[in-house]
Amino acid sequence: MKVAVLGAYQTKFGELWDKSLADLIFEAGNEAIKDSGVDKKDIQSGFLGNKLGPQTTGQNHLGALMAEVLDIKVPVVRVEAACASGGVAMAQAVQSIKSGQYELVLVVGAEKMTDVGGEQIAEALMGAASESERQAGLTFPGLYALIACEYFAKFGASQKDLARVAIKNHYHASLNPKAQFPFCITEKQAQTSSDVAWPLRLLDCSGVTDGAAAVVLASERVAGKFKKNKVFISASCQASDTLSLDKRPDITTLCSTKTAAKFAFSQAGIERKDVDFVEAHDCFTIAEIIALEDLGFYKKGQGYLAYKNNELRLGGKLAVNLSGGLKACGHPVGATGVKQIVEVYNQLSGRAGVRQSKGAKVALTHNVGGTGGTVVVHILNK
Amino acid sequence: MKVAVLGAYQTKFGELWDKSLADLIFEAGNEAIKDSGVDKKDIQSGFLGNKLGPQTTGQNHLGALMAEVLDIKVPVVRVEAACASGGVAMAQAVQSIKSGQYELVLVVGAEKMTDVGGEQIAEALMGAASESERQAGLTFPGLYALIACEYFAKFGASQKDLARVAIKNHYHASLNPKAQFPFCITEKQAQTSSDVAWPLRLLDCSGVTDGAAAVVLASERVAGKFKKNKVFISASCQASDTLSLDKRPDITTLCSTKTAAKFAFSQAGIERKDVDFVEAHDCFTIAEIIALEDLGFYKKGQGYLAYKNNELRLGGKLAVNLSGGLKACGHPVGATGVKQIVEVYNQLSGRAGVRQSKGAKVALTHNVGGTGGTVVVHILNK
Repeated sequence: MKVAVLGAYQTKFGELWDKSLADLIFEAGNEAIKDSGVDKKDIQSGFLGNKLGPQTTGQNHLGALMAEVLDIKVPVVRVEAACASGGVAMAQAVQSIKSGQYELVLVVGAEKMTDVGGEQIAEALMGAASESERQAGLTFPGLYALIACEYFAKFGASQKDLARVAIKNHYHASLNPKAQFPFCITEKQAQTSSDVAWPLRLLDCSGVTDGAAAVVLASERVAGKFKKNKVFISASCQASDTLSLDKRPDITTLCSTKTAAKFAFSQAGIERKDVDFVEAHDCFTIAEIIALEDLGFYKKGQGYLAYKNNELRLGGKLAVNLSGGLKACGHPVGATGVKQIVEVYNQLSGRAGVRQSKGAKVALTHNVGGTGGTVVVHILNK
Repeated sequence: MKVAVLGAYQTKFGELWDKSLADLIFEAGNEAIKDSGVDKKDIQSGFLGNKLGPQTTGQNHLGALMAEVLDIKVPVVRVEAACASGGVAMAQAVQSIKSGQYELVLVVGAEKMTDVGGEQIAEALMGAASESERQAGLTFPGLYALIACEYFAKFGASQKDLARVAIKNHYHASLNPKAQFPFCITEKQAQTSSDVAWPLRLLDCSGVTDGAAAVVLASERVAGKFKKNKVFISASCQASDTLSLDKRPDITTLCSTKTAAKFAFSQAGIERKDVDFVEAHDCFTIAEIIALEDLGFYKKGQGYLAYKNNELRLGGKLAVNLSGGLKACGHPVGATGVKQIVEVYNQLSGRAGVRQSKGAKVALTHNVGGTGGTVVVHILNK
């Protein structure tokens, strides 16, 4: 059974001092329903991706909160898979339609990160890593810095190559009014920004972001009743790996990305060359390079070379992170996996404005939890 | 498509100072797989119900943790719906099989509550209620005390009636070696235990519990390959209500229980009189009385009268909480919804030992999040 995206919405991403978590869920949920043309009372179920709600707002039981604030008296399921919470919420929603239980489902990803201090948010984010990594004093920039060091040593890449990822994604974000950092950066700025965890500099890291995104999904039967632009989900796959980096034979590859991608391409029945653009999980610049390799678009150790020409930019052979990515559009952690689907819907519906990818028909989204303990890959087509 | 329970396991419930959350997941998951007779490498997916992990252990991303500790390299989804986390995990697992995505799935519910102090756990538990209820200084005993007061005023019940619930459930727990409080209590003990929130006394409240439970679910096709005792899930339904009590027209009824039950009986195609026993959500004694009414077994306002004879005891017309319930078996909040299924599996497989319900064929489980913001009802049969 095919599942269609009927409507989509993303709030502004940024430091939204005047919005609570409930406000973000309210805005994204209601606007996505409005966009879909569906009558709210016809929504049969909801899914919410959120990672940090209990730690940053004291609120658990966010499924019931979502049902209350949106005034939908239907089952709502909150899932939590660190920064892959949004992707997992999407995958569960797709499954609920395929099971025949529901035909019209709302998916929201939402995160409110700026209401607590920097140390508290850093500690809460480390909940996505393993206990041993926390006890070792590691942070997420630290974990991805270890990955970058190993990648540099093995394949000869350098900080210059990381900077190219940031420059591209900031360029895309400069075309996206919803982005947290909608401005271009220069090579000099990238390479002189302050060190966070060598070799990662400030401009290699995604920020701390408030925001939400939502989509309305429908069975093919129900979707057929609407005249709207439709985008179909041809694959929805999740995979796991160890929580800890130190339990893996090679930290320059995310096995969970490879597994999820393998199943996804098989489920969709397409090949890598059929994909027009990708929303990849670039929480740090190194993560995007490795993602493009593990997804199978480039050979291991050669991903970073693709940034030297313009093939990954808007208009290039394989546009990557047209939204600006986590890096420059922002990374409200539980919302990211849903926001990626919103971007794909906007692109494939031809309403992405100045960053429209012309003639694109097939897209892939890639959402990572932690350092790859969870990965979710979706493939969508017009 | 029918879904079968192929195996089940519950850890000892109690103050398990020597077990971490990971230890509990490890024990329950591995023992349930062993009990099912399934080869671990054939498990295709996992679901984890857990409420408080991030607050009590600092660990998010518990799906990946479960995959790591059980050494199953498959997608694992953590769901959180307050004290209904286990029930929601079950419902999502059932859906994943019905969708055709998986045929063999492991469901674990686990909670580690005793590693933090009493104030911290009370605050974390209040994350299941609304912000306004937290700001009013309410606790969960306080919320259920409000419900009990209103019930007393409307229907003439008294603290004596509440005591009967506790006495029955402690009697059942005295027959359950896995129970946290495996002993009988007298009417005098119940009625002279210290006040917690009037009219609720200490012995009206479930405790703070560590524990885990797990089941292996299979599609009918795969289940057919095993000679084991099988129990089928004939209904799996979730419903929502407002988070706050003050947004409801009547607090002596949980609309979400009524809705979930209505759908469940319709899905299973059976009537109330066909149910032999029930595992109901008795976080407080008043909750069990109201549950039996909202599930449709007794008329509103008359549930408490059923405790005056022995019809709700082992051997009675409708045995309720043969495990001892949340009240006396214990309430590791994210595990409870899965433990209810374990008890039903043990009973319907004829291996419940001295608390065996003879000749039982159909059972119902009822799992509540908060004060009914989320409710999950399952119906199972031999």
